[in-house]
Amino acid sequence: MAPAQRKPNVVVLGGGSWGTTVASICARRGPTLQWVRSQQTADDINDNHRNSRYLGEEVELAESLRATTDFAEAANCADVLVMGVPSHGFRGVLEELAGELRPWVPVVSLVKGLEQGTNMRMSEIVDEVLPGHPAGILAGPNIAREVAEGYAAAAVLAMPDQHLAANLGNLFRTQRFRTYTTDDVVGVEMAGALKNVYAIAVGMGYSLGIGENTRAMVMARAVREMSKLGEAMGGHRDTFAGLAGMGDLIVTCTSQRSRNRHVGEQLGSGKSIDEIIASMNQVAEGVKAASVIMEFADKHGLNMPIAREVDRVINHGSTVEDAYRGLAAEKPGHEVHGSGF
Amino acid sequence: MAPAQRKPNVVVLGGGSWGTTVASICARRGPTLQWVRSQQTADDINDNHRNSRYLGEEVELAESLRATTDFAEAANCADVLVMGVPSHGFRGVLEELAGELRPWVPVVSLVKGLEQGTNMRMSEIVDEVLPGHPAGILAGPNIAREVAEGYAAAAVLAMPDQHLAANLGNLFRTQRFRTYTTDDVVGVEMAGALKNVYAIAVGMGYSLGIGENTRAMVMARAVREMSKLGEAMGGHRDTFAGLAGMGDLIVTCTSQRSRNRHVGEQLGSGKSIDEIIASMNQVAEGVKAASVIMEFADKHGLNMPIAREVDRVINHGSTVEDAYRGLAAEKPGHEVHGSGF
Repeated sequence: MAPAQRKPNVVVLGGGSWGTTVASICARRGPTLQWVRSQQTADDINDNHRNSRYLGEEVELAESLRATTDFAEAANCADVLVMGVPSHGFRGVLEELAGELRPWVPVVSLVKGLEQGTNMRMSEIVDEVLPGHPAGILAGPNIAREVAEGYAAAAVLAMPDQHLAANLGNLFRTQRFRTYTTDDVVGVEMAGALKNVYAIAVGMGYSLGIGENTRAMVMARAVREMSKLGEAMGGHRDTFAGLAGMGDLIVTCTSQRSRNRHVGEQLGSGKSIDEIIASMNQVAEGVKAASVIMEFADKHGLNMPIAREVDRVINHGSTVEDAYRGLAAEKPGHEVHGSGF
Repeated sequence: MAPAQRKPNVVVLGGGSWGTTVASICARRGPTLQWVRSQQTADDINDNHRNSRYLGEEVELAESLRATTDFAEAANCADVLVMGVPSHGFRGVLEELAGELRPWVPVVSLVKGLEQGTNMRMSEIVDEVLPGHPAGILAGPNIAREVAEGYAAAAVLAMPDQHLAANLGNLFRTQRFRTYTTDDVVGVEMAGALKNVYAIAVGMGYSLGIGENTRAMVMARAVREMSKLGEAMGGHRDTFAGLAGMGDLIVTCTSQRSRNRHVGEQLGSGKSIDEIIASMNQVAEGVKAASVIMEFADKHGLNMPIAREVDRVINHGSTVEDAYRGLAAEKPGHEVHGSGF
């Protein structure tokens, strides 16, 4: 039997609701340091075991979780790095890390989106900026607030090496947070980036008063459509039927709190996309992702009717009624091998 | 180009809500005759274009739909036979048909269940009683009432021969009812038989106040568990991620009208399964299916934790709290290849 080994230091970068929730989960398993920009947030975490700004007064974090605003301290002590910063700041933070991070340290992204301009997945950015560091992603149906409040939830941790995934999985796992593993980094990242567009489609449907059958139909066909593109990009089909695909899609499509669903509903009430964006204080990722999907679809020569109709409404002046008429006009074919909606 | 051919006569056996809804769909595409037991229902369909008993006064059926109580007439004119009778009467009706039905006539089942006692799928019964007749199934997220009211919905038609499926698919398709095709009869039949057990599991969760994350987790893991057994029995994995699997599961788990979800909720409130069954005027298929799944799981040497916990509550005196504790105690492994919950 191998002797007991030193526990890895987990460092989580980012002070938002999900980064904090994950940091608190990791702190229950072993030494964890969270880097945040605001001294006030760091004090709140260290002194009160709270992140009141993002998780309210009720949610108590792990007592052992420590926070710092000292980037170099965080970077230096990391044995595992968790990236909870938004996609637009992702590359910049990695570039700052490059000179400090020890070799081989695995990098786990919490980001469900692509880099604007390059359409790169976060793990691709890690490969570019920090070559030699294994890069993966943790994703699933995880409304941060619910996980923080202690409701049971599950996610999947994707790392290129399945042994590493199994090893790291233990760091992100509590009695109530179930972390599964996979080696399909591309699939999990693409599922996270794609699903918001489909939540907008379902949101549009709500505004038209679609039934429960219709909603389930759109979701089932969305999983098929996502799989098609995801596989063309190198992902596995099973991932899209799993937690990061279908699982996350269910939450995003049914939750009242879903921003992307909300965008779809507002589009259906006749508002323009600019009005809707202006009225929201958070970004709805699906708005940008719609046109990105169309670029990918073109590149791979794929027909993606649901994404196409969402893109038409958001970017080309089509209406929600047009969108659903457009889908209805497609003839259903083979469920798996058919090319259309 | 081939000359125009005579349209097939579709005969639907059974006067329930779904049989009637499907008959009305078929009647919009071509000649359709519905066999019902009750003269009153036949008159209602022929004279009023209604099936008031099962679909209420509001739902108007296709004017061209004809109904009869004459079994021999129906059997004789059928070019395509649609079986809308419940699973317990399925074999008996086929045996009555044997002497009347023309050769080669395809038989499409609408039944999402197994034969009690034998655990046979409906298409297996067709193969046994009417060898030589191609047997398939039409299934999906189809609450009959919603489809009858004209909300958009989709289903998948599974036939062993994909050309026949594509051909027949045209008979079950309207502007608002999208019939996809597949050759995976086993998968679609098993998905229909299995999903109710998982809806009970989700219903139990509702009674414990699970969050949206938790619900999505149970559903995603349910799809994986169903796939595992379905594949062992010869079905395709994709079917379980499709309309008859995940699609139907979503409706069954989220609809307020779902009987199986209701059973789970009632179990969670502490009622015994006998009390619950006595208080319902319709059968919740998942109650019987739970122990059947355990038999299949044993036979194929599979670990099916969600079904196991549901079976323990229904048949072995376990509580809903025990069930969720039992699931929480399972260590998450590889998302696809792991053997547990």
